[in-house]
Amino acid sequence: MVDSFESMTDSLPVYESLAASVRRLIDATIRTEVDHDVIAAATAKIDSVTAELSAELMPGTFGERGSDDGQGIASGNVVVGVRNPSAPPLVVHHEDNGSVWTEFTLGAAFEGPIAHVHGGVSAMILDHILGATAHRPGRPAYTGTLTLRYHQRTPLRQPLRADAWVDRVEGVKTFAVGQISGAAGVMVSAEGIFIHPRNMST
Amino acid sequence: MVDSFESMTDSLPVYESLAASVRRLIDATIRTEVDHDVIAAATAKIDSVTAELSAELMPGTFGERGSDDGQGIASGNVVVGVRNPSAPPLVVHHEDNGSVWTEFTLGAAFEGPIAHVHGGVSAMILDHILGATAHRPGRPAYTGTLTLRYHQRTPLRQPLRADAWVDRVEGVKTFAVGQISGAAGVMVSAEGIFIHPRNMST
Repeated sequence: MVDSFESMTDSLPVYESLAASVRRLIDATIRTEVDHDVIAAATAKIDSVTAELSAELMPGTFGERGSDDGQGIASGNVVVGVRNPSAPPLVVHHEDNGSVWTEFTLGAAFEGPIAHVHGGVSAMILDHILGATAHRPGRPAYTGTLTLRYHQRTPLRQPLRADAWVDRVEGVKTFAVGQISGAAGVMVSAEGIFIHPRNMST
Repeated sequence: MVDSFESMTDSLPVYESLAASVRRLIDATIRTEVDHDVIAAATAKIDSVTAELSAELMPGTFGERGSDDGQGIASGNVVVGVRNPSAPPLVVHHEDNGSVWTEFTLGAAFEGPIAHVHGGVSAMILDHILGATAHRPGRPAYTGTLTLRYHQRTPLRQPLRADAWVDRVEGVKTFAVGQISGAAGVMVSAEGIFIHPRNMST
């Protein structure tokens, strides 16, 4: 068990390194062409590592630990979580004017059409980045509606950028808009309504 | 290098087993609470396995190999790809009436709000399952627009189901609708327009 002081100060790099290592393994798993006996041996080694890491597991999911462990509630998040190997993970920048942006490149793990980003991955990223315009510390916002328009296919393995900004706020609702763009221009645009629930019990 | 006959007949189980093993590792990576020296040692072992698997890698991404290797073009897909450890992976069932459905349970790797599925993951799944109503062998459909409505939060670690069906077809456009539901009812609903491009050159 990691003690609480350590987890609040020094533990994040070791978890980040582990997740980054597994992220590279995911890519190799999809793309490997080595002989089947090498693959079978690799599978056994991975199972062994998983057993070692599973000797002490937090129950359920990362978020269920709460946010008082110093690592930040988002470390397990599927979009931005540095402890989640399935996350790209995006680094979201907040500007003083309320807009948010992130730059990223997606590899084999995010494929839909050949050599292109799955349309659902673009939707996931836009949901997160539009929602980030409405998030406040300790006061998360939840997606009410989200509409996506796909203008052209989004390439894998090329630099991309996502931007989002607030169109207007009406009570608990934030109306946000945004887009994913790359060298060829805007690929996907989005608009969404994000809600600050009055009752956070669920 | 895997020879072509073997890859067409016997190779899928070994790749599926590898991806399933890495999928378990992803979950343990997010949830482990073992000592930091154990984590550091695990990271080194994973790096070693990745190096072994990377001795021969297909260039780029899985899809770039084309669909003539017998594994099916979707093996690397981020939603349904059995070779992609980041994929749940969903198994999509097609009914004679054109509707499609899938049943699944999502774990720690798909978290957004505490103990709940990231809204963007729900969007990704609905994009795929609505799109599946329009796909034809050798004639994929691409998302034109997609609108999502979030009715209640979607739990992790509980059985879920996604359904989609065709509302109508107009020329190259398929208008599809669908939803994600669970024990508490419908959590997210969606409607989308999916397009069969006349020119497949891109």
